[in-house]
Amino acid sequence: MPVAVSSPLLFTPSSAPQTQKSWSLLPSQTLTLRRPTTLSARPRLAVPFSIRAAVAIEKETPENERPETFLRAADDTAAPTSVRGRFERMIREAQDEVCAAIEAVDGGGKFKEDVWSRPGGGGGISRVLQDGGVWEKAGVNVSVVYGVMPPEAYRAAKGESGAGGGDSSVKAGPVPFFAAGISSVLHPKNPFAPTLHFNYRYFETDAPKDSPGAPRQWWFGGGTDLTPAYIFEEDVKHFHKIQKQACDKFDSGFYPRFKKWCDDYFFIKHRGERRGLGGIFFDDLNDCDQETLLAFSTECAKSVVPAYIPIIERRKDMPFTERHKAWQQLRRGRYVEFNLVYDRGTTFGLKTGGRIESILVSLPLTARWEYDHQPEEGSEEWKLLDACINPKEWL
Amino acid sequence: MPVAVSSPLLFTPSSAPQTQKSWSLLPSQTLTLRRPTTLSARPRLAVPFSIRAAVAIEKETPENERPETFLRAADDTAAPTSVRGRFERMIREAQDEVCAAIEAVDGGGKFKEDVWSRPGGGGGISRVLQDGGVWEKAGVNVSVVYGVMPPEAYRAAKGESGAGGGDSSVKAGPVPFFAAGISSVLHPKNPFAPTLHFNYRYFETDAPKDSPGAPRQWWFGGGTDLTPAYIFEEDVKHFHKIQKQACDKFDSGFYPRFKKWCDDYFFIKHRGERRGLGGIFFDDLNDCDQETLLAFSTECAKSVVPAYIPIIERRKDMPFTERHKAWQQLRRGRYVEFNLVYDRGTTFGLKTGGRIESILVSLPLTARWEYDHQPEEGSEEWKLLDACINPKEWL
Repeated sequence: MPVAVSSPLLFTPSSAPQTQKSWSLLPSQTLTLRRPTTLSARPRLAVPFSIRAAVAIEKETPENERPETFLRAADDTAAPTSVRGRFERMIREAQDEVCAAIEAVDGGGKFKEDVWSRPGGGGGISRVLQDGGVWEKAGVNVSVVYGVMPPEAYRAAKGESGAGGGDSSVKAGPVPFFAAGISSVLHPKNPFAPTLHFNYRYFETDAPKDSPGAPRQWWFGGGTDLTPAYIFEEDVKHFHKIQKQACDKFDSGFYPRFKKWCDDYFFIKHRGERRGLGGIFFDDLNDCDQETLLAFSTECAKSVVPAYIPIIERRKDMPFTERHKAWQQLRRGRYVEFNLVYDRGTTFGLKTGGRIESILVSLPLTARWEYDHQPEEGSEEWKLLDACINPKEWL
Repeated sequence: MPVAVSSPLLFTPSSAPQTQKSWSLLPSQTLTLRRPTTLSARPRLAVPFSIRAAVAIEKETPENERPETFLRAADDTAAPTSVRGRFERMIREAQDEVCAAIEAVDGGGKFKEDVWSRPGGGGGISRVLQDGGVWEKAGVNVSVVYGVMPPEAYRAAKGESGAGGGDSSVKAGPVPFFAAGISSVLHPKNPFAPTLHFNYRYFETDAPKDSPGAPRQWWFGGGTDLTPAYIFEEDVKHFHKIQKQACDKFDSGFYPRFKKWCDDYFFIKHRGERRGLGGIFFDDLNDCDQETLLAFSTECAKSVVPAYIPIIERRKDMPFTERHKAWQQLRRGRYVEFNLVYDRGTTFGLKTGGRIESILVSLPLTARWEYDHQPEEGSEEWKLLDACINPKEWL
């Protein structure tokens, strides 16, 4: 498969930014690999080529400065007024806004930034704050990817439900695509302060190479969801209220539809429980016009800070015991199970050989698995578990 | 799919042993579910039926005593002299022997035992020692399963390589099978004391229901492998030497063949590294006669204690720092990644709805993920990582 592929959900570079030379991507099915030259003073242990060759991702180049755009200049669709152009601007503004809010509340921690681009176009900005004052791990990544998907990756990206995207015949062969997105997971230290995940993405496939006249497909995906270890009804209601407000500006059917979608998606099937208390989630969405969905995604991304930060302000300094911390760690274990076994972006990224450190930045700093742990009936831990098993209407 | 299925690798019951009534397994494609009656004083949160119904596992019953055998009495193949009978006795003796050795070294910890059976035959004994003096989590499980595999589960159990087992036509429909095995993961606390995993299993498929004259298939699988956070050459050489001695009693080609198979199997593809320093591994093995492979599996199981316990004795009380502990925790994170993403037994168990707590007892008590952690070149951590990326010949 002669392809440049990366995760449409995390949009991460394929490996660490210490290497100078790109792999040559030939127009045919053949692929020439040149051994990357190490720039870093401290060499990394080299991953055998056989691993990368199976997927053949175009190598990224580290950049010292953030470019104004990651879009291909030659591309008609790259005008600042295009959907691609406006979506990229939106996610970069959202990244700045969220990171600034996190740093302001965290006090001590600062985001470490990696900027990268790919020779054929596209690139991204990864920001991670680790072991801060309030957050143990906070990752906020944006990226823009031009690629060609093997059919298998296309199916993984679209999921089994296969909604949207229209023409199913595009599944038959490699599919050129454009993808841009923002993806973030924020794990606080205090067990009363919830984890937040959000991710908004825009996807376009070009006409398949063997049928240039076929229509271009596009869709939007994303969502924002809350994963506390303990329930504070005030917090959960506030969070869902902000999500509903964002939805209601567009369609009164959005919140109930995307709330349920979220409950269904973040489901740890082998446990019969959700990883958290939900929020909103949608994928492969193209049943409204592009302008509406672009505006809706923008509204959702702008809702992250007002939905989350007030909760953190209330919980970040609450005193807690070892029992609270151990329960948080058990729930973090569930987060790991969901992300590694079920999450579409993670499993897609692992399959296609995306940059592992960026993909797995969603995993918590620490997690715990106790054999056959059962919270005592009626306890605060039990209440959280009950709400993960039996999703509630919070509003 | 109207079936009783469980993991052939972990052979665990399908849910907790607090329920009284079984699900009725009808002979047709229909399945009647009766809500289990809770026996326990402290009820568990109920997992929605939709989850279990997808796989339809026969419910297990808790037993107060260990029965002499879990084999079906009516079955010709259940004679004490049969391969099934002798394999079951072997794994139960191995379980006793390993648990006794662990408790003796641990000092404080004791195994908690759960015995269970299934109405249609089969059952198991799960033993877990948690938060002991030396081990943070040690699970040693045996089980015997009679089931009918859907084709998908059959493929997952056989893996993609599809070696052994003979007639590929059996993949077409549901396959009745017998499976027995012992499975164990031992995670010590001290970062200089390595994790051990071993698993030995015997598998038979009956003739497919739609072609009763077709030949019965059988195969053996298993292995023992070592996962340290730090390399002590003395330990790794000792461990591999014992594995080789066990192999050499049968075939001088076994050790090199199964050593390489182990390096290939315990491979975290997205990292380009192995989870540990290997040992031996084989699967779907039926290219020798049954007697030879039964004796070989027995020899391997008997080698666990002499291969592992002397290493633990040397390392369990070594002083260590926070840095050592953090590195152990990062390697534990890799262990989680391998088990949840790649391990055939775990992914098969999660798909088929086996007893989750028993399947995931292989996960460590605690684990850690740091963004973009790179050990310093030449450091002890770097040496371990290097050996996981570039497997070495230890003998």
